[in-house]
Amino acid sequence: MAFKYQHDLVTVADMSETEVLHKIKLAQLFKAGKRITLNRPVYAMNLFFENSTRTHTSFDMAERRLGMQVLQFDANASSVTKGETLEDTVKTIQAIGVDLAVIRHSENEYYNDLLKQNLDISIVNAGDGSGQHPSQSLLDMMTIYEEFGTFKDIKVSIIGDLNHSRVARSNMELLTRLGAKVAFAGPNQWYDDKFAKYGAHLTVDEVVQDSDVVMLLRVQKERLGDELNDFDEGKYHQKYGLTKERYATMKENSIIMHPAPVNRGVEIDSNLVESDKSRIFKQMENGMYMRMVILTDVMVAKGIINKTDLLGVD
Amino acid sequence: MAFKYQHDLVTVADMSETEVLHKIKLAQLFKAGKRITLNRPVYAMNLFFENSTRTHTSFDMAERRLGMQVLQFDANASSVTKGETLEDTVKTIQAIGVDLAVIRHSENEYYNDLLKQNLDISIVNAGDGSGQHPSQSLLDMMTIYEEFGTFKDIKVSIIGDLNHSRVARSNMELLTRLGAKVAFAGPNQWYDDKFAKYGAHLTVDEVVQDSDVVMLLRVQKERLGDELNDFDEGKYHQKYGLTKERYATMKENSIIMHPAPVNRGVEIDSNLVESDKSRIFKQMENGMYMRMVILTDVMVAKGIINKTDLLGVD
Amino acid sequence: MAFKYQHDLVTVADMSETEVLHKIKLAQLFKAGKRITLNRPVYAMNLFFENSTRTHTSFDMAERRLGMQVLQFDANASSVTKGETLEDTVKTIQAIGVDLAVIRHSENEYYNDLLKQNLDISIVNAGDGSGQHPSQSLLDMMTIYEEFGTFKDIKVSIIGDLNHSRVARSNMELLTRLGAKVAFAGPNQWYDDKFAKYGAHLTVDEVVQDSDVVMLLRVQKERLGDELNDFDEGKYHQKYGLTKERYATMKENSIIMHPAPVNRGVEIDSNLVESDKSRIFKQMENGMYMRMVILTDVMVAKGIINKTDLLGVD
Repeated sequence: MAFKYQHDLVTVADMSETEVLHKIKLAQLFKAGKRITLNRPVYAMNLFFENSTRTHTSFDMAERRLGMQVLQFDANASSVTKGETLEDTVKTIQAIGVDLAVIRHSENEYYNDLLKQNLDISIVNAGDGSGQHPSQSLLDMMTIYEEFGTFKDIKVSIIGDLNHSRVARSNMELLTRLGAKVAFAGPNQWYDDKFAKYGAHLTVDEVVQDSDVVMLLRVQKERLGDELNDFDEGKYHQKYGLTKERYATMKENSIIMHPAPVNRGVEIDSNLVESDKSRIFKQMENGMYMRMVILTDVMVAKGIINKTDLLGVD
Repeated sequence: MAFKYQHDLVTVADMSETEVLHKIKLAQLFKAGKRITLNRPVYAMNLFFENSTRTHTSFDMAERRLGMQVLQFDANASSVTKGETLEDTVKTIQAIGVDLAVIRHSENEYYNDLLKQNLDISIVNAGDGSGQHPSQSLLDMMTIYEEFGTFKDIKVSIIGDLNHSRVARSNMELLTRLGAKVAFAGPNQWYDDKFAKYGAHLTVDEVVQDSDVVMLLRVQKERLGDELNDFDEGKYHQKYGLTKERYATMKENSIIMHPAPVNRGVEIDSNLVESDKSRIFKQMENGMYMRMVILTDVMVAKGIINKTDLLGVD
Repeated sequence: MAFKYQHDLVTVADMSETEVLHKIKLAQLFKAGKRITLNRPVYAMNLFFENSTRTHTSFDMAERRLGMQVLQFDANASSVTKGETLEDTVKTIQAIGVDLAVIRHSENEYYNDLLKQNLDISIVNAGDGSGQHPSQSLLDMMTIYEEFGTFKDIKVSIIGDLNHSRVARSNMELLTRLGAKVAFAGPNQWYDDKFAKYGAHLTVDEVVQDSDVVMLLRVQKERLGDELNDFDEGKYHQKYGLTKERYATMKENSIIMHPAPVNRGVEIDSNLVESDKSRIFKQMENGMYMRMVILTDVMVAKGIINKTDLLGVD
C-alpha cells in the first residue's frame, strides 16, 4: 500500500494514482456484493446546508449499507438559524457522540478551520461552494475507468459552466494527474486562466468530435445572479449544448457524463439523457459504491474497520 | 388466489373484491401480531411533495415494522428545488439503490409517466392531487368491514368538499364495486356529474339519519383559492357539519369516519371527534396495518417476500 | 427506591433529590458503557416545533443508543400546517403506534392538556416556551455533581436573559431544592419578583468572583422582539458578559456553564468557550447520557425495560 488511510476526506487535490485506483477497486468489490464489518456502532450525520438529492441520498444509502446509524439533520431547523457557527455545530454533535459528519456547505474550504483542530469526529466533504466535490470526482473516475480500463491519454472535454462548478475544478486536476488529456468548451466568460494550465478552450463542435468523454456541466441557475437575466436556454442549447446533431458526430465508444441534476434541453437534448452513450445514471449508481469506499477508508483510519477486511484491495 | 401481486400500487380503480378482502384479512393478521421476513435488506424512501403527518408517519412506521431501512427525503432540500423533474428524481434514487418510493404529489396521475418505463423501483401512491388516495381507501374499507363484516348494502354517505377530495373519488368507486350504497351531501357547488353515477345528492339531514357510515370530508382550505374569502366556518358547520343535533339522529350501530386532519367545529363538532360512534382514530390505527399490507404485496411481486409467508391469507 | 418511575417527564418542579441522584448515577453508568435491553421494538418521534441542534440530536442519539427506532418528523411538512392541533397530532401518532413523543413547543405548559387524557404514548418535554427544560436541568445537575460531588452550599450564579430562559426557571428551583445557593445577575429589566425568592440580583462582577458555577444564559435574540433594536452586542458583553477580565477573577475550581448555542463575544468571550474552566461541551456530552436516563426511566414505567436492569442504581 502506497497511501495512508485518512481520518477525513475533504479534497482530491493531493490524492495519488495509487489511492484513486484502490478506491475504484474497492468500489467495484462493493458493487459485486462485498460486505464489511464495523467494530462498534457508528453514528453518522449528513449536514447539507445546500440542497441535494443525489449526493445526500447516496451518502445516506452508503452509510446504511455499511451498517451505520444515520441521525436526522435539517439545516433549517437547526441552531444555525440562531447564529451558531459551523464549527460550534460540528463540535456539538461530536460532544453528543457523532462519529462522522458529511458536510455540504456554500463556503469554499469551510473545512480548513475544522481540520486544524484535530477533532475526533471525521469530516467528509460533500461539496464546498465552488471548490471541491471529491466524492463526485471519484465516482467520475470510476465511471471512466470502468469504460476504458485506463486514464492514460483518454481525452476528456469539460463543457459549460466551468466557473461555478466544483466538479470541473476537482476533475481537471485529478484527470491530469492520472494521465488523461483535458480540454474545455463553453461560453468564454466562464473560462479563465486557472483552467488554462489544464487544457485549451475550444469550440463545442471541436471537442465533441474528438473526445472519449464528453463531460457536460449543469448550468447552475441558482449561482448565476445577474447573468441569469440574459440567459436564454434555447440559445445556450444551440450554441453550447449536446444537441442531436452534435451527438451524431461523437466518436465510436465515446461516452457522455453529467453530474446531474440535468437541465433537459439546456446542456443536453432531453432524448440523449438515456441514450446509448450516456453514463449519467451509471454515474449515480457508481456514486453510492464510491461513497461506501470513502466512508470505509475513513473508518479504517479510525480503527473502526479492520484493515484485514480490505486484504487484496490495497 | 384470484389476483396478481402488483409491482406498484397507484390506484384502487381496478382492484377486485378478492384483492380488497385479501388485503383486509392480511391487515387484521398484522394487527394480531403477524410478522414477515424480508429476503434481503430493503431501502424505502417517502417522497412527500405535499404536507402530511398521518400518511407519512403511517408509511414510515409500516416500513420499519416490516424491517425496511427508511432513507431521509425532504422535498424542500432536494434537487427538485433546482428544477429536477419527478421522473429524474425517481430514476436517481433507483440508480442509488432505493427499492421502493412512496410518493405524494400535487399533480393528478403523476405516476403514469413513471409506470410506462417499467422501472425496477416500485411506486406506491400516497395521494395524487385531487385524484386517488389508495391507501386511505383501503384503510377505510378495512374499518367498514371490521364494523359490519360485509360491504353489501351498507349505506355510506360522503359529505362535504367532494370536489377537492381524493378520498371521495377513490371511495365512491370502490364502495360501489363492493356492493355498498353511496350517497352524497354538502354544498351544491362541490357536487357535479362525475359523482352522479355513484349516488344521489341529498341534504345532510337526510343522509345522516339514513347512513350506516357517515363519512365526513375535510374542508381543504389550502385548495379553496378564492372561495376561501366567502367561507364561514360557523355557517358551514350549521349547514353541512355533523352537529350534536344531527349526531342525535344517527342510526344505532352507525359510525362516523373522517380521513383527518379534522377541522374541529367545521365538518364535525369538536366533542364528537372521540364520541362512541367515531372511528376516526381507529382509521389511523388501521391505516398503519393496511400500509404494511400494501408494502408486503409489492414486496411479494418483487420476490423479496416469499408467497409462502402469506399462506392461508389468499 | 424513594421515587416512582413516571410515564411522562415534563418538568423537574416536583423532582426529589433521590430521583435526581438516581438519574445522575444511571447517567454515569451509561457514560461508562452500561447497556440496557428493550422488551419489544420501541418507536420514538421527536416533534420539535422550535429549532434545535443540541437537544434534538441528543435525544435522537439517546433513542438510537437504547435501540429504539426513530421516526421522521418535520413540523413544517406536517399537518400542523393545515391547522391540526398538537393534541390531535399526538393522538394521531399514538394511533399509528408511536410509543414515545419528545416534544419542544413554543407554548408554555403545552403538555397539560395532553397529560390529562392519560394517553398510552409517553410525553417527554424537550422545552416549553419560556417554561421548563427538564433534560437541560438534569444535565446541568449532572455536570455540577461530577465537579463538586455535592450540591450542598455550592454557589451558582445565573447570568443574563433570565426572563426568556426556561433554563433559568428549571434550574433555580431544582438547585435550591438540592441545597445549592443561587444568585442572579444581568440587566435589571430581565429580573423580577419570581426570581427574588430564589436569590438576590447582584452585579456580574460580584457573582463572577464569588461563584463555584458561573452559569451564563444565551441572549435569545429570536425572543427579544422590540428590545432587539436597542440591543448592542459589544455593550452587553462589556456590561454583563464573561470577559477575559472577569474570567481572571473567578475562584479556583470554579466552572463556567452555558446551555448553548453560544453567542460568542456576547455572553462570553469567544476564547473562553473552550477555556480550562469551561464545561460547555461537557454539558453537551452529559446531555446525551442524561437523555438516555430520562428515556430509560419512562420505559421502566411502561414495562418496556425491566426494573432488574437498573439493579444497584436505585
